[in-house]
Amino acid sequence: MCVCVCISDICIDLLYCQDFPYEVIVSNFEEDLDKAAFHKPAHYCVESASRKALDVARTLTDDERMPDLVIGADTVVAMDDQIYEKPGSRTEAIDMLTKLVAGKSHTVYTGVALVTHKPEFRHVLNVHSFSERTRVFMADLSPAVIAAYVDTGESMDKAGGYGIQGKGGSLIKAVEGDYFNVMGFPLHRFCTELIKLYTDLGVF
Amino acid sequence: MCVCVCISDICIDLLYCQDFPYEVIVSNFEEDLDKAAFHKPAHYCVESASRKALDVARTLTDDERMPDLVIGADTVVAMDDQIYEKPGSRTEAIDMLTKLVAGKSHTVYTGVALVTHKPEFRHVLNVHSFSERTRVFMADLSPAVIAAYVDTGESMDKAGGYGIQGKGGSLIKAVEGDYFNVMGFPLHRFCTELIKLYTDLGVF
Repeated sequence: MCVCVCISDICIDLLYCQDFPYEVIVSNFEEDLDKAAFHKPAHYCVESASRKALDVARTLTDDERMPDLVIGADTVVAMDDQIYEKPGSRTEAIDMLTKLVAGKSHTVYTGVALVTHKPEFRHVLNVHSFSERTRVFMADLSPAVIAAYVDTGESMDKAGGYGIQGKGGSLIKAVEGDYFNVMGFPLHRFCTELIKLYTDLGVF
Repeated sequence: MCVCVCISDICIDLLYCQDFPYEVIVSNFEEDLDKAAFHKPAHYCVESASRKALDVARTLTDDERMPDLVIGADTVVAMDDQIYEKPGSRTEAIDMLTKLVAGKSHTVYTGVALVTHKPEFRHVLNVHSFSERTRVFMADLSPAVIAAYVDTGESMDKAGGYGIQGKGGSLIKAVEGDYFNVMGFPLHRFCTELIKLYTDLGVF
């Protein structure tokens, strides 16, 4: 099975660790959805993941290179109905982390989209999507620690301004739920949904 | 500051990730404590961590190479008052995982010992120890999946017969607490205890 991953390095690390064969293709989807149009963060990240995966799947289908599975994922941090994505600047990263620390706990949502096709209808794409949520409890961090962390440079490409799998790990007191979901890919749920999907498709 | 780590690769990975300078020294402590002599798993793993760290610290002190800090850690899995350490065989690993799956959730304890000395009394060692617990919720795994996982070879050097940071990650539904504690080193707690210890010692 050729698995095509169109998302983050994190997902790749995890899939690699699970011995999934994969190829990385970056989606051209602009990630410009209007957050206000979604009632819940989970809906927003599922839609974003689906758009990413579909963009790649359509390109590959047109090129007659569509693999058995295209995976898209999108992670956001949410607190008090506000969605936090990647900070755009050092100031924004500090502001974001200061709010998350003050809030004590927040929720990380990852939306995942699995795009498949039936061998006899290679242009008919099927999207199976889901989202997973994990509660994250931040440590009580001083402004100096927040600034020092942001100055490591780790904040800039991470939803919420921190990376739990890096130096940011020491800023997190506890999680409730799947840790890998906070990293950006809900590994256990992915495995169970993949079995469900392939059972529905008659592969098993 | 020269930090001396006498424990697992996991701890090394995490400390490396936090930019701690360290050196790895394997403890000669036999890990032969009588589990029945301890009322709680937390007491057992703290004692084991302390013995590991003290063994290394004493050797280094005798050699006049004692660093600022020696860290020891020991992780055990506990369920229904029983302690599960590293399985000794394939059969034992399968049996261990079968019990953990049937039990739905179990607790991972990591004991950590931080050994320091005062500059003016280099032979007087001070041990600061603590333990951290994390609840782990296992997925509902079939005997075939358990056997296939054990056959990856990942079980044999892991407490409870699984490694959450490897292929075993997909076997875990959720955690409640510090994920890094399940890996074998409670990163956030370590940082806070280190600050506490150094404040007590008058370093800060």
